[in-house]
Amino acid sequence: MSFRVASVPASGEDSLIARYFKPIATDPGAFALDDDAAVLKAQGADIVVTTDAIVEGVHFMPDDPPDTVARKALRVNLSDLAAKGAAPAGFVLTLALRAVEDAWLKPFAAALGEDAKSYACPLLGGDTVSTPGPLTVSVTALGRAPADKMIHRSGARPGDRVVVTGSIGDAALGLDILKGGAIAKALAGDAAARQMLVGRYRVPQPRNALASAIRAHASAAMDVSDGLAGDLTKLCAASGVSAAIHTPGIPLSRPAAALRASGAVSMETLITGGDDYEILCAIPEASYEAFAQDARKAGVAITPIGAVIAGNAMPSFLDAQGRELALKRRSWSHF
Amino acid sequence: MSFRVASVPASGEDSLIARYFKPIATDPGAFALDDDAAVLKAQGADIVVTTDAIVEGVHFMPDDPPDTVARKALRVNLSDLAAKGAAPAGFVLTLALRAVEDAWLKPFAAALGEDAKSYACPLLGGDTVSTPGPLTVSVTALGRAPADKMIHRSGARPGDRVVVTGSIGDAALGLDILKGGAIAKALAGDAAARQMLVGRYRVPQPRNALASAIRAHASAAMDVSDGLAGDLTKLCAASGVSAAIHTPGIPLSRPAAALRASGAVSMETLITGGDDYEILCAIPEASYEAFAQDARKAGVAITPIGAVIAGNAMPSFLDAQGRELALKRRSWSHF
Repeated sequence: MSFRVASVPASGEDSLIARYFKPIATDPGAFALDDDAAVLKAQGADIVVTTDAIVEGVHFMPDDPPDTVARKALRVNLSDLAAKGAAPAGFVLTLALRAVEDAWLKPFAAALGEDAKSYACPLLGGDTVSTPGPLTVSVTALGRAPADKMIHRSGARPGDRVVVTGSIGDAALGLDILKGGAIAKALAGDAAARQMLVGRYRVPQPRNALASAIRAHASAAMDVSDGLAGDLTKLCAASGVSAAIHTPGIPLSRPAAALRASGAVSMETLITGGDDYEILCAIPEASYEAFAQDARKAGVAITPIGAVIAGNAMPSFLDAQGRELALKRRSWSHF
Repeated sequence: MSFRVASVPASGEDSLIARYFKPIATDPGAFALDDDAAVLKAQGADIVVTTDAIVEGVHFMPDDPPDTVARKALRVNLSDLAAKGAAPAGFVLTLALRAVEDAWLKPFAAALGEDAKSYACPLLGGDTVSTPGPLTVSVTALGRAPADKMIHRSGARPGDRVVVTGSIGDAALGLDILKGGAIAKALAGDAAARQMLVGRYRVPQPRNALASAIRAHASAAMDVSDGLAGDLTKLCAASGVSAAIHTPGIPLSRPAAALRASGAVSMETLITGGDDYEILCAIPEASYEAFAQDARKAGVAITPIGAVIAGNAMPSFLDAQGRELALKRRSWSHF
C-alpha cells in the first residue's frame, strides 16, 4: 500500500494521506496507516470479500459533491455485504486522482470517515495514484459471516417469495434529472421531488440493518445495482429457476409513483435502471412471516413482488392485467 | 462486485468476465465468479490486507505487454505480503478499461492465472469498469499470518543489521531504457543487459519464499517500492531509529554494477529509483545467522548493507571512504 506516513521527509503522497485519511483510520488493525498492510481479525468467521469501483462520468457526475462520491463508493460495497448476510468488517480504498485539491479531498475524507463509523466498517488502508483520466474510487470491502453461511445467488427454489427492500427506480430518475432529461422537465416545478431522486442516485442507502435477517431466512439474495429486471434474471439463472413478478406491486417512491401514473416514465425504465442498491431476495414461504417481523425490527421496508417458479425461462414481469412486459433490455452494462 | 456471470442474457461486462476471468477463478471461495462476493477462510490466522494500483503511463508503459502488466499488478501486492511475513491467500482485481480487446485481455488473464497459481494466491473476484482514461489495474491482496505476528515497519532497534534481498536499482534503469534515456544509449550494444533491466521494471520478483524467515527473524520489514533511500528513511522513522548504510555493499546486478563502474549511473540514481520490490528488513545480530540460513534454504539472496543506529537523524548512505552521499531526493512520489 502507499497509504504510508513518515514523520520525516514526507513525499507529496505521504502528506496527502497523513492530512486526509490518517484521522479517519482509527481502527487498531489499520496501524494508523503507518504500515504497508492492515490486519483484520476474522473472529472465527468467514471473511466475505467484495469490490466495486465508481468512475467519474460513469457512476457519478463530475460535479457531484465530494461527500456524496465518498459515500457512494463505500455504500455500493456495503450493499453487497448486506445482500450476502455479512456484517461489515473494514475496507481499503484506492483513489486515482488528477490533482490534490483540498476543497475536494477534505469533504470526501470527512464523509468517508462518517460512513465508516456509522456502518462500523473502518478504513484499513489504501493507495493513491495520480491519473490524467477520470477520478476513480475503488473500494474493497471485507465482512464477516458465520462459517459457510454467506447467502448466495443460487439458492432460490420454486415457491419462494421474491422480495425487494425500499423502492425501485428512483436512482435512474435521479440520474435523468442530473442529465437534464425528460424527468427534469416533468418535475420542473417540484424541487423537493427532484432533490429526493437525485439523492437516491448520489447516495445509496445500503440495507445492512437487514443482513442478519437475510442470513436467517433468505434462500438467495443479491443487491440490485444494474436494474431489477436484469439482476433478478441473474439470480434466477444462478438458481436454475424462473420467476413471475407482479409489476404493480413493485414498491415505488412517491415521486416515482406519480411520474408512473402520469405516464412520464415507464415501468420498464424503473426496473431496468441501475443504482438502486436495494436487496433482492428469495424467501421460502414458511419463513416469510419471521423474515417480515425481523425486517420490521430492523426498520427496513420490504415488499413481496412475486414468486419463484420452476423452469429456466427468463423471469416475466406482468402488468395489472397479467400481460407480460416486453423488455427491450434488462440491465445496464459498461461494455 | 460485477465479476458476475449469468448463463442467460449476458451483458457485455458479464461475457467479458466469463470469457477471460472465470477460467482462472478456480478457488472454491471464488464461487466461479458467479456471486457478488467471495469467501476467504481465515484458518485461525490474522488476515493481512494490502492494496496497490498500477496506472498506464505511471507504473507501466502503454506498450508494455499485457502479460507483464498482469504480473506486475499482482506482484507489487504479493511483495507487500512477503515483507509483512504473510502467506498469500487470495486477491480481488479492479480493471478500468477503455475498451475490450481480445488481443490484450487474453494474455493478461492467462498471465494473471499463472501467477495466481504459482504464488498460491487465487483470484477471488473483482470489478470491471469502463474509463476514457488510462488503463488502471487495482489489486487488493489478502494474506494470512499467525495471530499478531505480522511484521511491522516499526520494530527496528539499534544494533540490528539492515538487509536487502536481490539487487537494487535495476528497475529504475529498465524504465530509463524504455524511455530511451541515457542508459538506453550506454547499453546500445548490449541487448541482453537491456532486456534484463527492462524485465526487472516490468515484472517484479516478489520474495514470498522469504516470508516465513522474515516472520521468524526480522524486527522490522517493508518492501522497497519507492527507492531504497526513501523506504529505509520511512522504516527508520516508524521505528524511531536511524541507520548507516555502506553503499558499496548494496547488491547490484551485473549490468547495474558495470554502469556504476563506468560512471554511466550514480549510486543516488540506483538507491532512489522506484520499483525494486525487494525486501528491506532489520535483523537482530543474534538472529542473523539463522536468518541467512533460512534465506539460503528459501533460495533468496540476501545482503547486509549496514546497521540500525540510535537517534532520529535520517539514515546516512556512506561511500567507500566513509563520506556521506548528499541525496537530492530520497524517493518517488505521485504528487
